[in-house]
Amino acid sequence: MKKDYRFFRVNLKEVKPYDPHELPHKIKLNANENPYGLPQTIQEEILRRAQNIDFSRYPNSLAQRLSEAISHSLGLSADHIIIGNGSDELIDYLVRTFSEEGKKVISTAPCFAMYKIYSQINGSSFVGVPLNVKDFSLNEEEILEEAKKKDASLIFIAYPNAPTGNYFAAEKIIKIIEESNCMVVVDEAYYEFGGKTFLPLISRYDNLAILRTFSKAYSLAGLRVGYLLSNPEIITEVRKVKSPFNVNTFSQLAAEVIMENQETLKTNVHRIIQERERLVVKMAEISPFKVYPSYTNFILLEIGDKDNTDLVFHRLLEKGILVQVTSDPTFSHSRYFLRISIGKREENDILLQELENITHDLVNKS
Amino acid sequence: MKKDYRFFRVNLKEVKPYDPHELPHKIKLNANENPYGLPQTIQEEILRRAQNIDFSRYPNSLAQRLSEAISHSLGLSADHIIIGNGSDELIDYLVRTFSEEGKKVISTAPCFAMYKIYSQINGSSFVGVPLNVKDFSLNEEEILEEAKKKDASLIFIAYPNAPTGNYFAAEKIIKIIEESNCMVVVDEAYYEFGGKTFLPLISRYDNLAILRTFSKAYSLAGLRVGYLLSNPEIITEVRKVKSPFNVNTFSQLAAEVIMENQETLKTNVHRIIQERERLVVKMAEISPFKVYPSYTNFILLEIGDKDNTDLVFHRLLEKGILVQVTSDPTFSHSRYFLRISIGKREENDILLQELENITHDLVNKS
Repeated sequence: MKKDYRFFRVNLKEVKPYDPHELPHKIKLNANENPYGLPQTIQEEILRRAQNIDFSRYPNSLAQRLSEAISHSLGLSADHIIIGNGSDELIDYLVRTFSEEGKKVISTAPCFAMYKIYSQINGSSFVGVPLNVKDFSLNEEEILEEAKKKDASLIFIAYPNAPTGNYFAAEKIIKIIEESNCMVVVDEAYYEFGGKTFLPLISRYDNLAILRTFSKAYSLAGLRVGYLLSNPEIITEVRKVKSPFNVNTFSQLAAEVIMENQETLKTNVHRIIQERERLVVKMAEISPFKVYPSYTNFILLEIGDKDNTDLVFHRLLEKGILVQVTSDPTFSHSRYFLRISIGKREENDILLQELENITHDLVNKS
Repeated sequence: MKKDYRFFRVNLKEVKPYDPHELPHKIKLNANENPYGLPQTIQEEILRRAQNIDFSRYPNSLAQRLSEAISHSLGLSADHIIIGNGSDELIDYLVRTFSEEGKKVISTAPCFAMYKIYSQINGSSFVGVPLNVKDFSLNEEEILEEAKKKDASLIFIAYPNAPTGNYFAAEKIIKIIEESNCMVVVDEAYYEFGGKTFLPLISRYDNLAILRTFSKAYSLAGLRVGYLLSNPEIITEVRKVKSPFNVNTFSQLAAEVIMENQETLKTNVHRIIQERERLVVKMAEISPFKVYPSYTNFILLEIGDKDNTDLVFHRLLEKGILVQVTSDPTFSHSRYFLRISIGKREENDILLQELENITHDLVNKS
């Protein structure tokens, strides 16, 4: 038996398989999922219609009905959209379409982790341009400096950004679109919780695409449906790297049913926004930790150094509350955060109570 | 508005978006799907269990329950398997793991089209080593010659092969595994219709992986579930390029239910095999076209030159029967084929009747 590791691609050496961090918990606030789930009537409608699906046939390659439902609801024709197996898959497609080995993908630091992961997987390198450490605002000049280098290819800007939860100034992003001479992807995964969009600008520029997802506001993380919006020239190019049957028939159907019931689902989006605003105020009242304003379905809480952050994380986990520790080399060693998804009201109350208890213990200890 | 196409990756210029060839039809025999669909009781069981899924949560990253069900049924531990969003996605992962820009992926000509498509998408080049034109047997020496070149990376061998439908001699494939010094993937997409496998050999070699799918025998093409089997070292490496949430929750569940009902589904597999054998005999009787033996759920029928083949294709389509025209530059210009999936008995009878009519007209014309 040979043991010759020349088989593997060299630049995968540094890549580690994704670790889903599955820890036992009662209240799941670590993945920015919709805590209300799908309303039962909608889930029943999806399953009722699924009785008529012939699962033995390949899916519609372009998810035609869904593509039309989404694009028409936005006043666009269906040649402006690609549906993906989650927006993750579309990030991958974008890297493949606009970057390549030896080229650089640019985003912010911190940013959504998948931009770097898919850059690495595809052999591109990744540059995260630090946000201003104080207010998480965009350093558009530094991004433009990177973008003007010969090896720059593709820029991802999350709007609002994850994990910081804020919107960058629109005029800074427009400057990047206009001056970078790179493809610019504005990732609006949390759009429904903040309401601002670059969508009207896709017809004005030939280097702008918008990412959206059904995973956050529309309770469909488990079914993996995201979409990319851009002008038809860009869409045609991205379709070249699309897997012929990337989105399964059931997920196409489920998202179609969701499009027909958007108004119903918006009720839960409003509840999440209301809970977010309540939590931001309450957390500031009961804990010494800095709470950042959020336009998403999560809150960023700055705890302090790594030890303290781990302590708070584990105290919450002991009570069954799973949140996400986050940091970034951009910030100094003493800046660790918890990214906490907005749960249901009763879950948030338990969270607040426990944050209050932890604060009490920390104060007494010191 | 700028029109600067430097945005796009240069080597995508020659790639065309996948065309799903959707033509109106009554009898679909063009995609090697299972004509019987899922038995109703199994579809109902899947949908019944899906009532309890919380679609708003991300899927299990490793499809753990399904991975265990499949690997244990094969006498393996779960570190020998990766589940993919169809085996298509796994072909993509394999190219990414074992090849890279400037390297060559090797298969046969003809072979399953996706090997070339995913090679191009990932920037690898593709070499199809011609089969022997007479009996579609493997030119293992030519493949080894290609494999020994410095830029060779990965070899795909379909077993049985598509679209030719035959098994290559096992000892030739073993020679390739032992002497190529490349990763060798044996694609057993049609395994259930032929019964031969290289699976027992994965522990003997460190450069062998096996691809299987739920799309053909198990009536799940619409839900996109395939799997890769190999030794844990290989699996760990492929996991590095795996999307964290590649297989949606519903498809994981559906494939789990199928694993519990494999015996029921084998009834339809046997019916397809019986129909295939009946068709091979009947087609040879009623038509002048050469019928090749098949170990899959399709039959390869050699019609003649392109004009004649198009004529037969369109005559069938007029009667609502959709089949697939196939050819390969390996063969001379006069060798065009129809690849015809095995349908239900009554569908096959209509096909046979129409083939007989076409033959009659062709004979009268000449």
